[in-house]
Amino acid sequence: MKLAVLGTGIVGQTLSGKLAELGHEVTLGTRDVGKVFANKATDQYGRAPFSAWHDHHQEIHVATFSDAAASAEIIVNATNGMASMNALEHAGHANMKNKILLDVSNPLDFSHGMPPSLWVSNTNSLGEQIQRAFPDTKVVKSLNTVNAGLMVSPSLVPGDHNLFLSGNDASSKQKVRELLVSFGWKDKNIIDLGDITTARGTEQLLPLWVRLMGTLQHPYFNFHIVVGNPPKG
Amino acid sequence: MKLAVLGTGIVGQTLSGKLAELGHEVTLGTRDVGKVFANKATDQYGRAPFSAWHDHHQEIHVATFSDAAASAEIIVNATNGMASMNALEHAGHANMKNKILLDVSNPLDFSHGMPPSLWVSNTNSLGEQIQRAFPDTKVVKSLNTVNAGLMVSPSLVPGDHNLFLSGNDASSKQKVRELLVSFGWKDKNIIDLGDITTARGTEQLLPLWVRLMGTLQHPYFNFHIVVGNPPKG
Repeated sequence: MKLAVLGTGIVGQTLSGKLAELGHEVTLGTRDVGKVFANKATDQYGRAPFSAWHDHHQEIHVATFSDAAASAEIIVNATNGMASMNALEHAGHANMKNKILLDVSNPLDFSHGMPPSLWVSNTNSLGEQIQRAFPDTKVVKSLNTVNAGLMVSPSLVPGDHNLFLSGNDASSKQKVRELLVSFGWKDKNIIDLGDITTARGTEQLLPLWVRLMGTLQHPYFNFHIVVGNPPKG
Repeated sequence: MKLAVLGTGIVGQTLSGKLAELGHEVTLGTRDVGKVFANKATDQYGRAPFSAWHDHHQEIHVATFSDAAASAEIIVNATNGMASMNALEHAGHANMKNKILLDVSNPLDFSHGMPPSLWVSNTNSLGEQIQRAFPDTKVVKSLNTVNAGLMVSPSLVPGDHNLFLSGNDASSKQKVRELLVSFGWKDKNIIDLGDITTARGTEQLLPLWVRLMGTLQHPYFNFHIVVGNPPKG
């Protein structure tokens, strides 16, 4: 399948690398192709620059947001949640029309320091915001509740643990589910919460996620919904 | 121990019943003692009125918010989250001074229909709001992420699953932890998230909780944080 992954950060790299490994034709979308290759500095976390990563992933095309979206059947939003609306406008309404947009971003605002707040929450969500701005695109929110490494390697956390799906179109959620299963997620552990408004719930999980990462000192954990039985009588 | 449980709804009844069963001296606090006994109607969910429940729990004292708080060493806020600030003002600053307040409430606002929104969230929480209003009280937020029945019967959900603690005072959190262990919670499954600002994370879990209840059709489930290992290299 032809996929576009918007965003060249760690999430975009991880997802595009896995998709290419699975045999898909992947185009990474970015704001300015020249600029992303020109940057030779490590980032604030000491990670190698994009170009060093791409040297080992030359099968992955790199293009503008617009060209990447135009080339693909399914588009993944892996941009920073603060910049997602703008990035998607650059990707373009026509290039996303009638396509699935898998939105893995979170509206985390680090501009006031740690812990981050959410720039949209409670009676709204980034997933809904995107769906409203792109009514002809089939937005499916998922993967936003786990770390990038875990997204494509669920066995980094042992046993059963869950992912969530939010979206208005049942067949688009089914296609995303199949993609997640191809990443190694167990079908039974993917919970369909309902329409795109349920993205409020998973995006608002992030404040707890951030605190748990602080407590555990690493991001390799996940939520498992353990279900019991109503008491008798 | 002498405890006050503020709120005569299902959460207050469940918690006070369990505390009395464990041998504590429990006073239920309410706005108007006469009124709560005078009400003989079943509620919107078909549950029996307070007086019918109290007929089987006569060892539990019933008093005003103020008298209940004055009588107790530990106070539990089990009032409706929309009314908690007002109920605690009635309980009184002097009656809560230097005491532990275990806050199990959530700021759920059902006034705009389903699903509820949160009347305080993101950069604030009800737990913090209470701590700021009552600076001489030791607020510990916990139990707000599970259904009332599960609060006192954790084995209704099988295996391991978690509760969270948020609060500024370590020894108060330790006392609450011991109370939770006496309810049947495993010590290792009680996660101390840090200070009271971490209540933002657990209160914002409620929007997801409400949607999961919709999917599962019952509230007997809980979150288990499954922890893996960071990948090598």
